[in-house]
Amino acid sequence: MRRSIATVCLSGTLADKLDAAAAAGFDGVEIFENDLIASAWSPAEIRARCADLGLAIDLYQPFRDFEGVPQDLLAANLRRAERKFDVMQELGARTLLVCSSVAAQAVDDDALAAEQLRVLAERAERRGLRIAYEALAWGRHVSTWGHSWEIVRRADHPALGLCLDSFHILSRESRPSGIDLVPAEKLFFLQLADAHRLDMGVLSWSRHHRLFPGQGSFDLPGLLGQILAAGYRGPLSLEVFNDVFRQADPRQTAVAAMRSLLALQESAGQLDVPSAPVPSGFGYVELSVTEASRATVAGTLAALGFVRSGEHRSRPVELWQQGEARVLLAGRSQGRGAERCDGDTISALAFESADPQRSLRRAAALLAAPAVSEGGCGETGEAAGKAAALTAPDRTAILIHRPFGEPGCWSRAFKQAEGAGPTAASDGRLTGIDQVTLTQPFDRFEEAALVYRALGLSLSEEAEYPAPFGLIRSRTATDPAQRVRVTLIGTLERRGEWSPGVPEPQHVTFTASDVFAAARAARDHGAPLLPIPHNYYADLDARLGLEPELLDRLQEFDVLYDRDEGGEVYHFFTGLLGSRIFFEVVQRVGAYRGAGVADTPVRMAAHRRLRQQHSLLRG
Amino acid sequence: MRRSIATVCLSGTLADKLDAAAAAGFDGVEIFENDLIASAWSPAEIRARCADLGLAIDLYQPFRDFEGVPQDLLAANLRRAERKFDVMQELGARTLLVCSSVAAQAVDDDALAAEQLRVLAERAERRGLRIAYEALAWGRHVSTWGHSWEIVRRADHPALGLCLDSFHILSRESRPSGIDLVPAEKLFFLQLADAHRLDMGVLSWSRHHRLFPGQGSFDLPGLLGQILAAGYRGPLSLEVFNDVFRQADPRQTAVAAMRSLLALQESAGQLDVPSAPVPSGFGYVELSVTEASRATVAGTLAALGFVRSGEHRSRPVELWQQGEARVLLAGRSQGRGAERCDGDTISALAFESADPQRSLRRAAALLAAPAVSEGGCGETGEAAGKAAALTAPDRTAILIHRPFGEPGCWSRAFKQAEGAGPTAASDGRLTGIDQVTLTQPFDRFEEAALVYRALGLSLSEEAEYPAPFGLIRSRTATDPAQRVRVTLIGTLERRGEWSPGVPEPQHVTFTASDVFAAARAARDHGAPLLPIPHNYYADLDARLGLEPELLDRLQEFDVLYDRDEGGEVYHFFTGLLGSRIFFEVVQRVGAYRGAGVADTPVRMAAHRRLRQQHSLLRG
Repeated sequence: MRRSIATVCLSGTLADKLDAAAAAGFDGVEIFENDLIASAWSPAEIRARCADLGLAIDLYQPFRDFEGVPQDLLAANLRRAERKFDVMQELGARTLLVCSSVAAQAVDDDALAAEQLRVLAERAERRGLRIAYEALAWGRHVSTWGHSWEIVRRADHPALGLCLDSFHILSRESRPSGIDLVPAEKLFFLQLADAHRLDMGVLSWSRHHRLFPGQGSFDLPGLLGQILAAGYRGPLSLEVFNDVFRQADPRQTAVAAMRSLLALQESAGQLDVPSAPVPSGFGYVELSVTEASRATVAGTLAALGFVRSGEHRSRPVELWQQGEARVLLAGRSQGRGAERCDGDTISALAFESADPQRSLRRAAALLAAPAVSEGGCGETGEAAGKAAALTAPDRTAILIHRPFGEPGCWSRAFKQAEGAGPTAASDGRLTGIDQVTLTQPFDRFEEAALVYRALGLSLSEEAEYPAPFGLIRSRTATDPAQRVRVTLIGTLERRGEWSPGVPEPQHVTFTASDVFAAARAARDHGAPLLPIPHNYYADLDARLGLEPELLDRLQEFDVLYDRDEGGEVYHFFTGLLGSRIFFEVVQRVGAYRGAGVADTPVRMAAHRRLRQQHSLLRG
Repeated sequence: MRRSIATVCLSGTLADKLDAAAAAGFDGVEIFENDLIASAWSPAEIRARCADLGLAIDLYQPFRDFEGVPQDLLAANLRRAERKFDVMQELGARTLLVCSSVAAQAVDDDALAAEQLRVLAERAERRGLRIAYEALAWGRHVSTWGHSWEIVRRADHPALGLCLDSFHILSRESRPSGIDLVPAEKLFFLQLADAHRLDMGVLSWSRHHRLFPGQGSFDLPGLLGQILAAGYRGPLSLEVFNDVFRQADPRQTAVAAMRSLLALQESAGQLDVPSAPVPSGFGYVELSVTEASRATVAGTLAALGFVRSGEHRSRPVELWQQGEARVLLAGRSQGRGAERCDGDTISALAFESADPQRSLRRAAALLAAPAVSEGGCGETGEAAGKAAALTAPDRTAILIHRPFGEPGCWSRAFKQAEGAGPTAASDGRLTGIDQVTLTQPFDRFEEAALVYRALGLSLSEEAEYPAPFGLIRSRTATDPAQRVRVTLIGTLERRGEWSPGVPEPQHVTFTASDVFAAARAARDHGAPLLPIPHNYYADLDARLGLEPELLDRLQEFDVLYDRDEGGEVYHFFTGLLGSRIFFEVVQRVGAYRGAGVADTPVRMAAHRRLRQQHSLLRG
């Protein structure tokens, strides 16, 4: 099926938008009238430009407040329509979107609306054009797809059909019924948009907070299935009004849009993408740090019980291990992409898969890597042998390997480190990697989640919480067994000049089987643990009435605590290791599913204090 | 009356917030529990810090989900309360905010709620503390102030009273009645917040979009009047949850908060501020431009019909005049503040007032200038003689002078320019300044409006419209006669890296009595007018069915057109004159009140095209 995108989804002038849509591989566009009006290109020139770019003009939109008007307004509306038909013929656009009237003068009279739309369709037909009638969710009298279908049926003209818009339908009813019964020849056009369920009026919701398919919580595969069952074979066209996308680089947005559409097509069984095993665990996490930070990071790993077990055979990369937790420590690359990677970074995540090549083929088919790779930061890929890598929107490389220890394992690229104990020398304080938490670029939060979903991980709902320097949102991607967990965080508003928190924090959380033993040993070995204020424990006592002994232990080791219906969580943090990386150690008891998120503001304030103290010491 | 602010209004850690509140002159704070929990200071240390800063701790908040619970939960809730009483005694905070239960286990039983609150109040009283009960607008069973009062009345304990929150009250009913009948001794605390009327659920609205008084559209003076009539004499305390303020510099936010509170107090007759005449017109607009832009700006002024009529007696500043439009043209200052003023800028607005000193005293009393002046850009003040100036949040200086031509006028600082014709030599194409449009710093859009209101101007509702590079919002400050008009614009989202539009545009709109004559003359004299695309006129024709002759004239002179019920507007633009300044010429016919805002996207796309062409020519 053809894939289209409405120009209103993208930021920029019409020229920017067409370039971006073509570069992302769309077959066609809906031209939003305001984009055409502001363009210096004539409609014929726009047609030629689209042809050059390989884009069809699948829809011209919107035409507003046409139907259901008193008879004396009809002539003016028809005159207006004829002028727009002129534009469409010059453009080579065959279908006009007419959305249901919102004007105060519109009359609640289905027969009148049908009659007037029939007159419009007759005129369109004479020009070889056709009318796709759409019910806006906030239409004055016609606000449901069913009502719009009733009017189209009544008007009964071959040049009049329906435009279905998933937002207008699913914002009102999550499981519409009967769409599969509409005759296919009456389904002229399909617009697709997703959204989170927000507690707000449908007009503001639609105009500000639409998302691309899969980024929100609407059941788009279900709706698309119904519409395909009805026989619709027209374009699958994205129409997303979103405040952030309106300001973001249209080239990135268009690629994200295509990624969403491909994933939707696969969900609806309309696209043949190789299946692949879900990642079954973390192979390793790679840190690329500046020379200034390297000693601190290495020292902290050692204090946490990690052993420097391997050295890369050809590059200055170390392998640190403890239980199933594996960390590669590399210097900041001086090469490709280095200028874009300021300071220390989690440069790569390696996932384990029973069939890495298939996982990568699947991810590539779903555009999980940006169409234009910008390269990662650090020693990515090279450090880890020949595994192909994806680059996530935040520039973290994602590698997929066979499980550790299997034949052909990436670890063959490492030889035993000089002076290091054997790999198994860890005293077992930490047992593995629990999760990795990565700050996303502001404009790309939504799309990042879909990259992880393309790898087979499932996404949590978006959570939101206050923190000292602004509201934070987060979304977690996990496998069913919770062996891989990547938490994407971002701010609700783009940060401005006043942002004294850790800039774009990233952290790795390790699992411990005994959090107190781990904390005690880490402290004894000189790890820079993060001090937690007494007030936190006083509040914990007030809220939860913990045993005094437990409370004392928590406080003694700066361990934070939370519980929910499923279980408990104990966790502690290190201070900042360089510019933005830190570690966390967690012990989960029972089926605790949170991420200790309630403690994040406390952690953030504590990190800020540490840095202020360091500045004072330095200053 | 005492002025307080809740720490939750401000960004940062508790230390940042207390510093900011004290610096802005608040008498007290409400301490938000999460701020205390994340602080390394003990409650006693916080008490000492507040005392050092001259801040009382007027409230500790919030205590949640206490009342109306099954009896077996009461013991745990009382234990929790006792621990918080410990904190309060150490803090020296006397009043605890208890907000109405939202928990699923809360029971709909007023008698039970009253009984349990009475038990809590008894315990508080034993410690010398008291309980202020507040109805959250989304409380499970208690969601109106009237209902909370009914429960407090029923509980009948001297240590139990009401906390009134203007948001919870006015979000539900715009004119509450009966508040003035509550006995004064039962009004324990008053929290003030404003908001725009938004079509969304009250919980999200409250948590994300509260504003300081006067920034929204609630009738706060009316409510405050009722509460004062009841005899309330406690603190006036601001409690504003706002996504942007949560991320903005707390020092600026605190000053903006104080400015709002002072204006509210004046509106409610609680503050004695000198009255002053409303500005009656523009004295002049001052442009400070780089050496590279100066010739372009001067040439364009000349082409528009301005005459270089004066030279400052002691500084390199020119006075350009035409009719009542006066423009000062200065070089970019190399001195104070110059490093913060990148490129060309509208550095000052001069308003005319019958009593400038009184206007300035009034503005200063309402904190219209930032408490810490950052200095303006350009030759401000000095250029214009000795008039004292305010500095708006966008760093534009605002000067207030006696009307032009009156004794002691600022123009005495200028001598007749060499080689210039007499002042009255203009051929009268342009007659005055219609409005000045200024982009506001993202974090300071809300507060900027109140600076202009402090000068006696009235504010329009906020308008919002789509534009090629993102959504734009605008708000206009005018005098009743519409002789002064300042339009503040901003983006709905902070701009990111991809922002190819004019950066932070500023423009001056001049009035013409015959827009076509003005456009023709400007073009004949070589002014760089902005070309408007044909598609715009085709759409105008489709929408409005203009006379072909008029349509041709509009198109010939690149004049844009709009109309509303009141009248018509004709306007044209120049290209960009340097980095971000341009001019507009407008003719209003009848009582057109808009600002031709519908044409903004067309203007923006046209400016971008011009710049792209220039880059091509240069490249």
